[in-house]
Amino acid sequence: MRSITLSAIEGIPPVNQGDDLARLIAGGIEKTGLRLQAGDIVVVCQKVVSKAEGRVVDLKTIAPSEFANILAKRWEKDPRAVELVLRQTNRIVRNDRGVIIVETGQGWVCANAGVDESNTLTDDSAILLPEDPDASAARIRAGLKNLCGLELAVLVTDTFGRPWRDGLTEICLGIAGMNPILDLRGTTDLGGRELHHTVVAIADELAAAAGLLMEKAAAVPAVLVRGYGYQPFDGSAKVLIRPAEADLFR
Amino acid sequence: MRSITLSAIEGIPPVNQGDDLARLIAGGIEKTGLRLQAGDIVVVCQKVVSKAEGRVVDLKTIAPSEFANILAKRWEKDPRAVELVLRQTNRIVRNDRGVIIVETGQGWVCANAGVDESNTLTDDSAILLPEDPDASAARIRAGLKNLCGLELAVLVTDTFGRPWRDGLTEICLGIAGMNPILDLRGTTDLGGRELHHTVVAIADELAAAAGLLMEKAAAVPAVLVRGYGYQPFDGSAKVLIRPAEADLFR
Repeated sequence: MRSITLSAIEGIPPVNQGDDLARLIAGGIEKTGLRLQAGDIVVVCQKVVSKAEGRVVDLKTIAPSEFANILAKRWEKDPRAVELVLRQTNRIVRNDRGVIIVETGQGWVCANAGVDESNTLTDDSAILLPEDPDASAARIRAGLKNLCGLELAVLVTDTFGRPWRDGLTEICLGIAGMNPILDLRGTTDLGGRELHHTVVAIADELAAAAGLLMEKAAAVPAVLVRGYGYQPFDGSAKVLIRPAEADLFR
Repeated sequence: MRSITLSAIEGIPPVNQGDDLARLIAGGIEKTGLRLQAGDIVVVCQKVVSKAEGRVVDLKTIAPSEFANILAKRWEKDPRAVELVLRQTNRIVRNDRGVIIVETGQGWVCANAGVDESNTLTDDSAILLPEDPDASAARIRAGLKNLCGLELAVLVTDTFGRPWRDGLTEICLGIAGMNPILDLRGTTDLGGRELHHTVVAIADELAAAAGLLMEKAAAVPAVLVRGYGYQPFDGSAKVLIRPAEADLFR
């Protein structure tokens, strides 16, 4: 029987700048009564990664630009938070009806450049996305390997909206130890016909699966995925970002 | 320990028009060595639903319109398949670089109106989306309840692309027995702050999770999800379709 088990990693304490996230996750896994196995996938939400990496910004230190003030006034937002969004922004994709969808410097297209104003340390702070989530994932993976001696894969995820469909889903921002896509092109289907268009974003499917256990108030910043057979691979989650020339929704 | 188990339902035979899908799925669950429990979620891929419902079209019976011929010539496609796409189409959202993204009559925004040319019975046929996937899910749910006496939830899913991110993911087209969204608005986060923007598309996350076990060549048209605590609800997957007035990417 092919099956996959998703387990909420409980007992991870509040994370602060400089914390060793691999150690906190390993501790949580132990507290949950789990034992890591080779081939496991550890999915970690961006928020604790950003906190450990010191990506929390005190909004009192942010002086809004004129443009940030204009946008904030128009949409009834905190001008300092808007300024922070603009500083992470490469290109504004859409700005209407109170929504600012941007392409960040790292290439993600998302609302508010992924700047998070909830679950922060004080009411006056915001959390930025990790600077290089692939590197974050690789660091956590190396730390876990150091602690347990096992080859694992690690995903760093965030909760994004998407066009056309309501509701947020968890997606993959950074990856280490596995390929984020499953490329079925060139293989044949059950009828023996070649599959031409089938590249599956398995990293996003894994993120979404983990998202089921990562409800915001439930204090579950990490999920253990067991039983998904992946090929070890030195991949980057950047391949999930559609290149500009293939993007019909710029 | 909070955990969710995804199990591939094996041994479902090729599906034909008129087949009792609930019975075939129940048989597959038994062959796989599983036993249904109250609260389980059964995720079924659209293709077998459409086959059972007779949504397979013989392309030899389709006379392409002039517009279908023009599009097909320009993008080197089968004009009969393009004609079939146009007949399911309410509005063309984008048509460029060989891609036709449309809003279907039922409201989904997707490539080729969800018309599927692979895994069909012969080389000259195509499979349409179910006419009413909520009703399909409800029928399967009622059939399973009839067979096993249990309250379950059922999802009907398909593999869709999305803007900005490469790769396909499994999404929810139809649902019965549970709410497709988890609305956290009004609840508070760990810091006691009210969550304003957090509506989670749990049906799409469940679909994506199941998608990990639904690889095309692996003949797994259904997946059993156990351990996800949902509230029984008479929901519709249509709430996952963003209303036109909130859609910035028309």
